[in-house]
Formats: sequence, C-alpha cells, structure tokens
Amino acid sequence: MASTSNDSLPISIHNINPKVLECEYAVRGEIVALAQRLERELLTNPGSHAFDEILYCNIGNPHSLGQQPITFFREVLALCEHPSLLERNEINGLFSEDAIKRASQILKQIPGKATGAYSHSQGIKELRDAIAEGIKARDDFPADPNDIFLTNGASPAVHMVMQLLISTEKDGILCPIPQYPLYSASIALHGGTLVPYYLDEASGWGLEISELKKQLESAKSKGISVRALAIINPGNPTGQVLTKENQEQIVKFCKQEGLVLLADEVYQANIYVPDKKFHSFKKISRSMGYGEKDISLVSFQSVSKGYYGECGKRGGYMEITGFSADVREQIYKVASVNLCSNISGQILASLVMNPPKVGDHIYESYCAERDGILSSLGRRAKTLEAAFNSLENVTCNKAEGAMYLFPCIKLPEKAIKAAEAADTTPDTFYCRQLLNATGVVVVPGSGFGQVAGTWHFRCTILPRENKIPDVVSRLTDFHKAFMNEYRD
Amino acid sequence: MASTSNDSLPISIHNINPKVLECEYAVRGEIVALAQRLERELLTNPGSHAFDEILYCNIGNPHSLGQQPITFFREVLALCEHPSLLERNEINGLFSEDAIKRASQILKQIPGKATGAYSHSQGIKELRDAIAEGIKARDDFPADPNDIFLTNGASPAVHMVMQLLISTEKDGILCPIPQYPLYSASIALHGGTLVPYYLDEASGWGLEISELKKQLESAKSKGISVRALAIINPGNPTGQVLTKENQEQIVKFCKQEGLVLLADEVYQANIYVPDKKFHSFKKISRSMGYGEKDISLVSFQSVSKGYYGECGKRGGYMEITGFSADVREQIYKVASVNLCSNISGQILASLVMNPPKVGDHIYESYCAERDGILSSLGRRAKTLEAAFNSLENVTCNKAEGAMYLFPCIKLPEKAIKAAEAADTTPDTFYCRQLLNATGVVVVPGSGFGQVAGTWHFRCTILPRENKIPDVVSRLTDFHKAFMNEYRD
Repeated sequence: MASTSNDSLPISIHNINPKVLECEYAVRGEIVALAQRLERELLTNPGSHAFDEILYCNIGNPHSLGQQPITFFREVLALCEHPSLLERNEINGLFSEDAIKRASQILKQIPGKATGAYSHSQGIKELRDAIAEGIKARDDFPADPNDIFLTNGASPAVHMVMQLLISTEKDGILCPIPQYPLYSASIALHGGTLVPYYLDEASGWGLEISELKKQLESAKSKGISVRALAIINPGNPTGQVLTKENQEQIVKFCKQEGLVLLADEVYQANIYVPDKKFHSFKKISRSMGYGEKDISLVSFQSVSKGYYGECGKRGGYMEITGFSADVREQIYKVASVNLCSNISGQILASLVMNPPKVGDHIYESYCAERDGILSSLGRRAKTLEAAFNSLENVTCNKAEGAMYLFPCIKLPEKAIKAAEAADTTPDTFYCRQLLNATGVVVVPGSGFGQVAGTWHFRCTILPRENKIPDVVSRLTDFHKAFMNEYRD
Repeated sequence: MASTSNDSLPISIHNINPKVLECEYAVRGEIVALAQRLERELLTNPGSHAFDEILYCNIGNPHSLGQQPITFFREVLALCEHPSLLERNEINGLFSEDAIKRASQILKQIPGKATGAYSHSQGIKELRDAIAEGIKARDDFPADPNDIFLTNGASPAVHMVMQLLISTEKDGILCPIPQYPLYSASIALHGGTLVPYYLDEASGWGLEISELKKQLESAKSKGISVRALAIINPGNPTGQVLTKENQEQIVKFCKQEGLVLLADEVYQANIYVPDKKFHSFKKISRSMGYGEKDISLVSFQSVSKGYYGECGKRGGYMEITGFSADVREQIYKVASVNLCSNISGQILASLVMNPPKVGDHIYESYCAERDGILSSLGRRAKTLEAAFNSLENVTCNKAEGAMYLFPCIKLPEKAIKAAEAADTTPDTFYCRQLLNATGVVVVPGSGFGQVAGTWHFRCTILPRENKIPDVVSRLTDFHKAFMNEYRD
C-alpha cells in the first residue's frame, strides 16, 4: 500500500486518522472490486471469461437486479418532485387518482409546496405524523412524531447513535456475530469497542440470553463500559426472525443491565415463513408494561429494504424512546448540523409506513405488486436454501426473513492451506474462486464475523427469479469442482 | 439541563460523548427555536405579537421563502423518479422536449433505469462524467470523474474529510473567523482543534497571508499539527469574493506549509458585483502550474445554493485532487460504508454542473429563470446593505457573493450590561430583542466567531423581493428603538 504514497503530499496513509484505517466494510470490499474489474473486462473483451455476466449476490440492492418499484410510490414522488404538474389536467391519464390525491395532500403540508427547501432537522412534521400513525397501526401502541428522526437511509442514523454513545475505546456495543458490518465499521470509526455475542447457528441462529450475559461480564472484566445492545431482526446476514418470547427476554435483559436497545428493524416487511411474524421491540416493550422511563430504545427503519427496496432514495428514520429531554436535545443538535435528510426520501418513508389501504382505488394493484415481490423472494430463498443444503460439506439455515442466506462450508484442509499460500482467509479464497469461475459475487463470512474455524459466505436472494436456476447450477458446478480439487 | 435527566435511564447528559456536547450550530440554535415558538403562538393565537409573520433570515434556504425551482431541473427529476412516464405520449404536452431528452439520456446510463438502486459509492459514473465536463467548462482545466464523490449535500463531504484528517485534539484545521459553523461543529465532533484565522473586516473581509502565517506559527508553538486550511469562497457569513491574486497567494502558502486546501465553493454561482468573478482553487492551482503532486485540494459543491437553491434535495459533491492512491482508497471505503448518496441529488448535481446550453429549445427560458433569481438576489443584497449602513452604530461590508450580510453593530455599554444581566452575549441579546419585536430572525455573530469585543449578526438576502422593504422598515424601527433605549 505505502508504495503508492507520494511523500511530497501532506496527507499519506501514515498520517490519516487510524480509526479510518481500522474500519472495514466487506459488502463493498475486495471481492466486489474484483467483480467490477471482471465486468469491465467482459465489456471490453466479450468471451474473456467462462461466464457472460456478473451476478451480484453481495448486497441487498433489489432494483439493481431488476426488481420494479411500487408504482404508487413512484407516482407520488414524481408529482412531489414537480408540483406544478398538479395544476395540469393531462396528469389524470398519466397518474392514478390515489397518487394525485396523496401528492396533493403531502404538498399541502409543505409550506409553499417547497420540496426544495430544507425541512425541520428531524424531517417534515406532517410526514413524521404519518409515520407515527403507521407505527401505531403496526404495533397497536402509540408513537410520537417528536420521537422520529428522518435520515438518509438507516446508516446515518446508526452513526448518529454511535457518535452519541461512544466517547472512548472503553465504551462497548454488544453486536451479534455474524453482523451487518455497518455496525463494526461505525464502532471502529467512532473509536469504540465491539463486544461480540455469538448467534447459535445450530439452533437457527438463536440468540441466547446466557451468551449475552457471558459476553457482557467478560467485557466488564476488561474495563469496558457496555452502553448498548444491537439486535438485527430479521437478521442480517443470518435471516432468522426472533420469537416474541426471545424478544421479551432481550428487553428484560437490557432493562436489568442498563443497556440501550438498538433495534435494526429494516427488514420488518421481509418475512417468508408462515410461523413467524415481525414484532417491533417497542411493541414488545410496551406490551410488557415498560414505558418511557423503563427502557431506552432506538428502532431503525429504511425505505431500502422490504418489498419496496428503494435503496437509491436514501430514506429512513429512527424512532427514539426512553431518552431524557436533554439527551434528545443533543441528538437534535447533531441532526441540525446536517440540516435535514433529503425530502424525496422523507416522503417515501411516509408512504412506506402508510401504503394504500382497503378502499383506495389502487389498493388491489398495490397489493398485487407487493405480494408478487414478497412471494417471489420467499420462493427464491427456499430454492437457494435447498441448493446450498444439497452441496457436499455445506449446511444452511432457513431464511425466515431479510434478504440473505449465510451457508456454512466445511472447507477441506487442503483448501485452507491453499488460502494460506494465497495470503487470504479460506472463505475469501472460496468466494474469489467462485467469482472467477462463475461470475457469482458473494461476500466472505469473515466480513460479518463467524465462530473461529468456521467458514461462511453471505448470498442475497435477489437475482431475478428466472436467473435463480442459473445461479444454482453455477454454484453447484463450481462447488463440485472445488471439492474435487481440494477434498482431503 | 440536568434537571430533565432521568436517572433510571442508561443514557444521560453526563455520560454521552463529550464531543457531542462541545459541538455548536447556531444557524439552527436558540434564536431559531424561539422563532419556531413564536410562529406556533401566532398560529394558535393570532394577534398575540406585534407582527403577523416570522421572517426567517437565519439560513440559506431560498425555496422556503418562495424562490421557485428551475423548471428544467424539476422536469428531469420528475421523469427520472418515474421512468415509465417516458413510455407515454401524453408527456409531450407536460414536459419540455429538452427535459424528456435529458431524462432519457440519464436513464439510459443507469442499468435497468433503476433510480431506486444503490449506485457506485462515489455516485453514478456517467453523472460524474457529466460533472467533470461541467468543471472543465468552468475552469478550462480537465477534471477526472474518479476524483468526484457525490454526497448528500456538502455537509457530509466536509465531515468525511474532517474524519480523515483528525486523529486527536493535536490535529488542527485553519478556519476563517467568522466561519460557517459546520466547520467548527465538524471539528468538535471529530475531536480536533479549530485554528482560527481572522478575516479583516476593515478591508472587506480580506484574507491576509500574514495572518495565516501568524496563526499557523502560534498553533505549532502549542504543539498543534495543522493539517488543512479551510477557505469559504464566496464567503459565508461574510459575502466577500476572493481575488485571483489572493487565491494564488493562498495556494502557494498551502504548498509551502504542507496544508490540504479545503475549498468550500458552494456559492460559486452567487456573485453580485461586476468586478468580481468566481475562480475555483483548482483552476488557480493548475494555472500556476501546480499539478496532482504539488497540492492536495478538496473542492466542495452543493445543489443547495447558487440560483438553484435546492436545499431539500441534499445533492452535492467533493472533487479531491492531489491525494495518493492509498489515501483515496480509504476515502472510498468510508463512502462505501454509507453505500451512496441519494440518486435524485446525484442527478440534480449533474444538471447544475451541466445546465441547458445555447441551442437547446429551453435555453432562453432557463436563462430567464436563472438571471431573474440572480439579479433579484443582487438587488436584495444592495438594499439590505444600504439599510444596514444607514443605521446608527452599524457598518456593513458589501455582499459581493453568497447569500448573506454580516453587519457589525457597536453596541452601547448599557446594552452590553443588559445582556450580561440576561445571562447572554450582547449579540444574542440584540437578535433576541429584534425577533421578539419584529419577527425577523437573524443569527448572532457569536455563532460564527468574531473579533473579541465586536458584535455582528448574519442576515440572509433571501426574503422575497417584495418583502425586503418590510424587513428593512422592521429592522430600522427596531434598531432606532433599541438605540434609544440603550444609548450610553
């Protein structure tokens, strides 16, 4: 690395913030850089590889793989983008009645219809009202619009909370392993300590309170002050959905131990099994009788996931409850330094939390779009899961929710040695070989964390349904060849 | 403050990150909170104050005060928001031919027209190509799309650079005083040291190299390692536009002293005097013969300012030159943790840097909109400047550019005593009285920094032109009454 440094420049790899160096984010890391190179090679030199396209299974980015947006959402956004359209009769043939109505409603709530103005630093009040209503409809417990901070996707919200909680490396955040690496990256950037708790792969990525306790005690014994517990439900990269009973235990644990509960609930609309249901941690807390004074809770939501999958809009919010007024003021101040999140993202977040309802003209077609996407995702999850489980030395838990599978590969000793010789981890070695042979891009388990000595990769369930057989056959053929080459 | 804390909760004002506590951002601070309260009171109880509306002159948020968006930009954004519109004939009556052409062009560059997908972490490559072309047309020197990082407005870009440069409180950033408080806030949040250099009010907020040198030496003598020099040109809150000669001196100084030059150029399109012109620092550097290996330079640009004023879109970019490949990799990695900036903001940034050209059907009407806004802003700046200069004890430099005036008020001793009694700074005291008496919201100079013992406030030039006489008469009447009350 240092060889590319230019000593005459004032900034070099040796004098930048070491926290930046420590941060890692494998979802767009080394394997993806390789994929982009291969893609350019295919473009300039077709036939240069054994495959004719790169199949990106590395990131939860549905629209990039052909998933279509929900028509109603885009109609409303287009009208809000150019409000003078609403004064033209011609729009009646172009936009649905419900979209025109909703856009007019939203614009009426914005002084001067000025979607080009900075809003309140927490987001437009009336959009937060709509989101609070949506939360109430979901949970059956009230939500306060003043608790909602609209953000450019969930990631900046996670950073804001980490910034608040972490002062030094003595501040710890309990994070699941495996975890979505935004958490490890954000903790590293803010100079805190990630306190790992391991999900139990054998019980379908189960979350055991005894494990939380053990890791909390171990961190304390090292002088770490553990500030918060991060939970991703449904799980990323693991795809499990927590049971209500498990969630109650977690809430109780946070209350007892004085931990802020950071609930990453961005996959709340992605559930694929009939026996599981999404429950927000706020709903669970309130139904246990815990109120504002009992538990500090942050719930993260995003427009990037669900059946909407609007990653490019960078919309999302956090709902914070159980924070004192003076701490909330500090959060508001930090939000105000960045002025506000983008207004289209704010509007979309209000739509996602308040989609068309029974009685709306568009309701049926909206449901058809939504259910089409969700049922297809469910089928893709099942197909991929079965495919992984049919491979030699591979086991894979069910994707009950979210957008990923996280299969475990028992790699032969010979493969581990080959990885060592190639100066990389065994899972990266496997993923790199897979990419070079098939064009399929998955992320090595080491990017998410895994029990030492076990190897995994994360594979999204997002390629178009008609491409799934191709993904399966490429993966299967590669895996057979790989095992034949490296079997001990 | 502590009285609002709840001791049973794990997070209190006493155990959050002290860097968050240190951060200040007056542009949305105490005075604005008071204004919002008064506005609510006017709504629920009309006639409860001596004025019937709040006039926000605190923030550069043009659309919130009635400035209309550029039609062409919004047409393109609406079409990109809902790409299936382009398949419908009805749009020909609703959208300009040029907007349809540009939207089609842009969508063709996005695989699957997927404006709902995460893009490359630096932004969509083809939009960066367009921005690079725009920079080249502006500067007459080439720009590399790989140097461009699209961001959600300029603020996150500034944070990214501060995060890179600041490791400890021993890392200093030279910042103008007065400064836009994003800089002081970001330096505080990242735990660095703001090294002030004072702009010379007497010479129209001049920037003297001798002052830079003096402050640099003084910081060094305290063990501060100064990493960068931040320049805001045109100036915020001060409105001056640097001369080419002055810029050349600055570039030379950065080169000699090994400082990264952070050029806040978000007001590049806001120039109101015939004898000044905007020159980017990159253009100046290149025209001096300084290349990639001579100077490290970051230029910040935003869609929020200029004649476009699209604050709510959160679009912007930074162009980084003179950074080694390994440091750039680190910047890319940090950008990738947040995936990408919002696509509408990205598209708008490409439009702002590549507006309609001679020969386009829409060119004339686009120019009429643009020039109408800019000439009106120029007139408003002049009127307000004259008004301030006509007040007793007030002097005000010209707003050559940007969107603000920063008048100096010599406050009588009696007013300073009254402020002391009210437990606030004299400038805050003045601004609070002004707000309570007139509904006009300005930001005290102490939020930006000022020479000790001098008092200022920042006033935007953004109220609608037909409201300016009202602003002037409210301000004038208030100031006379204030002086009559407090004159020594």
